[in-house]
Amino acid sequence: MATQPAEMTVHSAQPYNAEPARTVLAGRDLTPLDAFYHRNHATEQPRIDPATWSLRVDGMVERPATFSLGALRERFAEHTEVVTLQCAGNRRSGLIEVADLPGETPWGPGATGTARWAGARLADVLRDVGVDPAATDVVLTGADVADEPDEPYAVSVPLEKALASEVLLAWSMNDAALPAEHGAPVRVVVPGWIGARSVKWLERVTVADAPSSGFYQAVAYRLLPADASPARGRGVPLGPIAVNADVLSPADGAEVPAGRVHVTGYALAGGDRTVVRVDVSTDDGATWAEADLAPQASRWSWRHWHADLDLPPGTTRVVARAWDSAAGVQPADPAELWNPKGYVNNAWARVTLHAIAAADG
Amino acid sequence: MATQPAEMTVHSAQPYNAEPARTVLAGRDLTPLDAFYHRNHATEQPRIDPATWSLRVDGMVERPATFSLGALRERFAEHTEVVTLQCAGNRRSGLIEVADLPGETPWGPGATGTARWAGARLADVLRDVGVDPAATDVVLTGADVADEPDEPYAVSVPLEKALASEVLLAWSMNDAALPAEHGAPVRVVVPGWIGARSVKWLERVTVADAPSSGFYQAVAYRLLPADASPARGRGVPLGPIAVNADVLSPADGAEVPAGRVHVTGYALAGGDRTVVRVDVSTDDGATWAEADLAPQASRWSWRHWHADLDLPPGTTRVVARAWDSAAGVQPADPAELWNPKGYVNNAWARVTLHAIAAADG
Repeated sequence: MATQPAEMTVHSAQPYNAEPARTVLAGRDLTPLDAFYHRNHATEQPRIDPATWSLRVDGMVERPATFSLGALRERFAEHTEVVTLQCAGNRRSGLIEVADLPGETPWGPGATGTARWAGARLADVLRDVGVDPAATDVVLTGADVADEPDEPYAVSVPLEKALASEVLLAWSMNDAALPAEHGAPVRVVVPGWIGARSVKWLERVTVADAPSSGFYQAVAYRLLPADASPARGRGVPLGPIAVNADVLSPADGAEVPAGRVHVTGYALAGGDRTVVRVDVSTDDGATWAEADLAPQASRWSWRHWHADLDLPPGTTRVVARAWDSAAGVQPADPAELWNPKGYVNNAWARVTLHAIAAADG
Repeated sequence: MATQPAEMTVHSAQPYNAEPARTVLAGRDLTPLDAFYHRNHATEQPRIDPATWSLRVDGMVERPATFSLGALRERFAEHTEVVTLQCAGNRRSGLIEVADLPGETPWGPGATGTARWAGARLADVLRDVGVDPAATDVVLTGADVADEPDEPYAVSVPLEKALASEVLLAWSMNDAALPAEHGAPVRVVVPGWIGARSVKWLERVTVADAPSSGFYQAVAYRLLPADASPARGRGVPLGPIAVNADVLSPADGAEVPAGRVHVTGYALAGGDRTVVRVDVSTDDGATWAEADLAPQASRWSWRHWHADLDLPPGTTRVVARAWDSAAGVQPADPAELWNPKGYVNNAWARVTLHAIAAADG
């Protein structure tokens, strides 16, 4: 029996930006390939022939090198990590409800997903070429070029993170070859950090003594004060993700039978933190009940949670929030964190449920 | 000229729990010794003769060892770190305003301070005795014993943190011998974590395969849901500190001249995060101005900030909040995070200022 492709909400066709319905993510440690969000900057997806592709490793290294896909796979051990990726723009729609964000993709809850990634450790590649002790950052450049600005997609991560064992140059996703639309033949996976650092269609790794000066590091993907306009170097670059959570099932606006309703969702601590508790409220946060946490598939993956709520007939807003291992908790209101590019909405999650009383008799 | 000792608010004499006024902390990278907060559990401070003191290192190690103070100082290199310590109960008074916390010390803003600590790296000591690969935690036991429970003060940190280069067994504080009241001859300093992990009057380091089962790890210093009672293993142990900030000057309730008022404070990101921005508001968070950040004395220290506000005559509530390097921001309201032991109040900081118009003519 053929699997029915997951229905995606397509925000734009070119570049292709699409996300699954929240319910598709519910309860699954791994997100199916056809339900994994797509976030692109280039109008056309790069078309790369793996047979001729190569990875250039250069910059502040002792032995600059170029690896074919075969050489990369042969020279470096394959490591596997289950990792949740999350777009910095995930849940932007909640910020747009506070104040419009013209030109920004109105992502809902689905610009996140979890996969089992396999590939070489970036650390192994860097050690192989020998890193200059004065280096501080690693610039990652993909083959994708947007119309504006007309430059390859390039960002950087601090060397300390690049050398962490969890950062992969992945050629496999959920035990299949990495799909073209997710960055084949090789993409970066930077666990715990905004998805924008997990460069697809990787072509070049450049060790440097400063962060990337490219648009996607120096202008975009930065946290700005509410009254600022994006400008080169303004604000601070986003990196690790703040603690976040969402309700995944039932769907927002769903009709459910009144009485006991099973509510599920995910939470993600970001950085190297873990989720230690999730709370659920049906009175807008006046009181909270503790949700049950499912086992975490890996240190770098989301953590699913569930709670049984007793809903009276009528409309109830279900609120959820997570705590991380530093006793950090999500802020209540998206207005508190509204920012001009609409990044990292980690306000309490809210869905509205309509509970229908059982028919008489 | 003799230095005037800082005036401390003494919450209890036995055990001695005291904190400085917020203004004493303002603008100083290092907190003077006589203004550093005291948080004790034992009625009587341990009286230790450094000449006969020794440190026992045991548990899951290859070569259990006992070090005299001289041996410790001779065998291991001295390292220095500027580190901010912060009591998990700091700012508890803000939680008590939400709902009473009987029996808990009503700490204000001053249960935090920064010092230059020098001593051996705990990692060097652990490597010297050889850690069993199956170990996961390191239990730290002090000489202080409370009346209730009648057991030595003992907590643990995960082995991964214990092996981090910033964790010290400190014998020096602000370039002086560690004072008796701050844990002489040797105390632990665990940067980025709640003060309760920085064990004073250290006597024993025990490598283990589980966290400490002692009261201060298994019952106290845990984050509890609002409706829970403390019980063994209930809730989750506190560890790294969530992002926090406070106004340090002017004092809360101060009279100031109307017009331009210079407001200063600190922010602390906790864990291994950094403070990336501090916002100040005079309209309860409806709008914010970005504060200026002072250079950070070290990766593990607080970051001072300042802002010039234009205050009209009358009463203004000044609000401040910090963002960490994961785009995490403080929650707005202490009611959101009220918990039955009153820990980690990192709600927005608030002080009330009374601006006095200049006298006519």
